[in-house]
Amino acid sequence: MTQQTRPSVVIIGAGFAGINAARALKKARVDITIIDRQNHHLFQPLLYQVATASLSPADIAQPVRAIFRNQDNVKLVLMADVTAIDTETRQVQAGKSTISYDYLIVATGSQDAYFGHDEWAAVAPGLKSIDDAVGIRRRILVAFEMAEQETDEEVRQKLLTFVVVGGGPTGAELAGALGEISRQTLAREFDQIDPTWAHIYLFEAGQRILQTFPEDLSRTATRYLNSLGVQVRTGQPVEEVTADGVVVGGKFVPAATVLWAAGVKASPVGAMLGVPTDRAGRVLVNPDLTVPGLPNVFVAGDLASLQGPDGKPLPGVAQVAIQGGTQAAKNIRHAIDGEPLEPFHYHDKGNLATIGRNRAVADIRGRHLTGFLAWSAWLWIHIYFLIGFRNRLTVMLQWAWSYLTFNRGARLITRSDISAQSEQKT
Amino acid sequence: MTQQTRPSVVIIGAGFAGINAARALKKARVDITIIDRQNHHLFQPLLYQVATASLSPADIAQPVRAIFRNQDNVKLVLMADVTAIDTETRQVQAGKSTISYDYLIVATGSQDAYFGHDEWAAVAPGLKSIDDAVGIRRRILVAFEMAEQETDEEVRQKLLTFVVVGGGPTGAELAGALGEISRQTLAREFDQIDPTWAHIYLFEAGQRILQTFPEDLSRTATRYLNSLGVQVRTGQPVEEVTADGVVVGGKFVPAATVLWAAGVKASPVGAMLGVPTDRAGRVLVNPDLTVPGLPNVFVAGDLASLQGPDGKPLPGVAQVAIQGGTQAAKNIRHAIDGEPLEPFHYHDKGNLATIGRNRAVADIRGRHLTGFLAWSAWLWIHIYFLIGFRNRLTVMLQWAWSYLTFNRGARLITRSDISAQSEQKT
Repeated sequence: MTQQTRPSVVIIGAGFAGINAARALKKARVDITIIDRQNHHLFQPLLYQVATASLSPADIAQPVRAIFRNQDNVKLVLMADVTAIDTETRQVQAGKSTISYDYLIVATGSQDAYFGHDEWAAVAPGLKSIDDAVGIRRRILVAFEMAEQETDEEVRQKLLTFVVVGGGPTGAELAGALGEISRQTLAREFDQIDPTWAHIYLFEAGQRILQTFPEDLSRTATRYLNSLGVQVRTGQPVEEVTADGVVVGGKFVPAATVLWAAGVKASPVGAMLGVPTDRAGRVLVNPDLTVPGLPNVFVAGDLASLQGPDGKPLPGVAQVAIQGGTQAAKNIRHAIDGEPLEPFHYHDKGNLATIGRNRAVADIRGRHLTGFLAWSAWLWIHIYFLIGFRNRLTVMLQWAWSYLTFNRGARLITRSDISAQSEQKT
Repeated sequence: MTQQTRPSVVIIGAGFAGINAARALKKARVDITIIDRQNHHLFQPLLYQVATASLSPADIAQPVRAIFRNQDNVKLVLMADVTAIDTETRQVQAGKSTISYDYLIVATGSQDAYFGHDEWAAVAPGLKSIDDAVGIRRRILVAFEMAEQETDEEVRQKLLTFVVVGGGPTGAELAGALGEISRQTLAREFDQIDPTWAHIYLFEAGQRILQTFPEDLSRTATRYLNSLGVQVRTGQPVEEVTADGVVVGGKFVPAATVLWAAGVKASPVGAMLGVPTDRAGRVLVNPDLTVPGLPNVFVAGDLASLQGPDGKPLPGVAQVAIQGGTQAAKNIRHAIDGEPLEPFHYHDKGNLATIGRNRAVADIRGRHLTGFLAWSAWLWIHIYFLIGFRNRLTVMLQWAWSYLTFNRGARLITRSDISAQSEQKT
C-alpha cells in the first residue's frame, strides 16, 4: 500500500475526545489531520486553578504539535477556525485550507450558555479557555487592589463581594478557591481592608449543589464551602446580571465580580453537519458514535448527545470525552478493516470535586469518599491524567509549595491597570 | 517613640531599585509605602525567556505584597499610577490616594524609546512588561502557524522572517532564542514548512553587538548567533519600520515580526520632580543619590543619571539598580540618624549575556569567559537572584527539562486567533 492510498482522518477539536482519538489511531495506517482554534490542548478540569492564581496557563496546556511530535501518522496540525463542513464532497474548510477526509471526527465540545441572555457574558465571564481564566484571575485580584484604595464604604463592599453562578463542580471549585484566596492567601497582605471580610456567594437554581453527586456528598461539599466563608444559596436562580451585581429572588446583590458556571451549550461546529441536534445543540449520534446517515462521520465528547445504560444522557465530563474519542478511533479502524462497528459503552470511573485544601467529595462506583482521602484521590488522578511529563512535575511542585506555604504562585495581574478595570466595571 | 512619629518612606516603583531599597529598610524605624503600576516585581533579565516560550510569566514575577508579607514596616502597597509629585507639600498622588512622605525614593526605571518614531511601537513591540513578553510570544508562534497555512510563497517568506532591532544584551538574547526555536524546538513539528528556513536578522546601528562588552566577546557572541542561523548586521541603522518589514540601508526587508530592543528612555515619573534631567529624561542626581535641592528625595536605578568612577554614565542594568536602591535606603537611615550621607559607589560584578544553549559571554572584572563556563555562570547567577524560593525551583525545573528535551514549556498562543493576527499584520 503506498502512502497515497492511506485513508485520511480529520479530527476537529483538540480537547479530550480529539486528542485521545488521535492517540488511539497511533498504529493505524491512516493520515491524520488535527484542526483546532487554539494551538494547545487544555486540561480543562484544572482551569479553575489558573483562574484562582494557583497554576500558570502553561502548566495545564500543551501545544498540539508537541503532543504528536513523535506520532508519524499525524501529518498536519492546523490552528484555524472551521467555517464549513461539506459531507457530500467530504471536505472541511478551515481558515484558508480545504481538507478532504475519508473519516471525520467532530469533537469541538461546548461553550458557555447564558440562557438567552448573551449580554451577561461581558459582565459574568465563564471558564472555558486560558484567556477566560487569565481574565477571571485579573478580575479577582484587581477587585482586592481596588478595594484597598477605595474610600467609599459601599463601593468597597461591592468590590469585596464575589458571586459564582451555578453550583456544579466548576462553580463549587471556583467558590472554594475564592474562599481560600480571601481567608488564607491574602488574609494578612492588605492594610486598609481585611480580605477575610469578602463575601462569596454561590447561587444555584436547583435544590442542591453538585447535582450529579449523591445527596450526602452535596451536603458535605456545602459544609466545606461554608467553612471557607462561602454562602451557598440553592433554589436561587439568578434573574439579572449587570456590571454592578446580580438580582436573585427579586433582590439585588451588589458585586463587582460575577463568575458564570451555570450552563453550557454545544459548539456551533456541530450544526455544520446539517443533522438533528438536541435542545442544547448537541448532535444526536448512533450508539457507535456515527452520525445518522453519515457512516464515516463520528461525533465524540461534549458535542455528542447519547444516552447511557440508565437512559440518562451521558454527562459532559472529561471521562466521557476520553472514552468516546478512543471508541470513535477504534470504530474507524473497524470500518477500514471492513469489520462491524462497536457501540460505545461508557465506564463511569467516578465523580470527584475538590473544595480547597484537604477537602473533596468523591463518588467512585457507589463508594462515597470525603475529606483528605477524597482530596488525595483527586490530586493524584489529576496529576496522572495531565498530559506531559513536564506539566506533571511543575504542577506537583506548585501544589506542594502552595500546600506548605498557603500561598499561590501565579498571582499576576496583567493587561490591566486599575483605571482600565474601573472604567469597565463601574 | 510612638508609631505616629515614625518617618514615612514612599517608594515609587517595585523594580530592582525599589524592592532592594525597601528590603534594606527592613530594620529601620520607618513606615514604608510602595507604589507600582503593576502588582508584581518583575525579574526583567529573564523576560526574553517568557517572550520566547521558555518560561511562564509567573516564574519570573512575584506579587509585591507577597515579597513584603513578613516585613512589618511595609505598611501599604498600592497598585496605582503616580500622576503627580508635590515636593513642596511632600505628597504623591497615586490613583485615588494622596500619600505624604518624609523621604521619597523614585525608581520607576525606563521604557522603550523609538527615537521620534513612536508609531513604530505598534508594529515593533519592545520587551518591558509581562504583557509585552506574552504579546511577542504570540507573534512569534502565530507567524509559524500562519506560514504553515500560507500558499503564497512571498507571504510565507515574510511570515518566516524575524527582525530584531538592537544588538544589546536583550536583542542578542532574543535573536539567539529565535534561532533555537526555529532550528531546534519547532524543527520537526510542521508539515508544509520547515521552520529551519526561518530568516532571523539582528540589526545593530553601531559597529558591533554587545557594545558594553570587550570586543573579543562581541566577536564570540556573533559567532554563536551565526551558528544558530542568525544573520548579524552591524553598522545598519533601521530607517523605517512598518507592519510588513523594515528598511535598512535604503533596502526593504519584508518581515512579519519585528522586535524592538534598540533603546530606552526614562520613565515619565522623573519629570514630575521638576528638576533637571539628561537627554534621555533621567534625573541628574547628586553622588549620594539625592536630587539637587531636594535632600529628602532619592532617585535610583535606570531613572538616575550618574557617572561612574571612569566618568562614563552608569549603565541601566539590574546590578546598578540593586546597589543604588540599597544605597538610597542606607542614606535615608543616615539622614534619620543625623549622620552624613554616603556617595554611591557602584561595584561592577561583571557583565553576562547568553546566546542559547551552553553558550554565553561574560566579562567578570576583566576576565573574559565564553562557552559552557560562561553559560553556567549565567544560569546560576540568574537562579540565585530570582526572588522567591518557588520561582527558583520552578525555573530550575523548566530549564532542566528544556535542556534535556530541546523543547520549550510555554508555547501557548492566547488572545489570538489567526484571523485577528492576520488582520493586524497584513
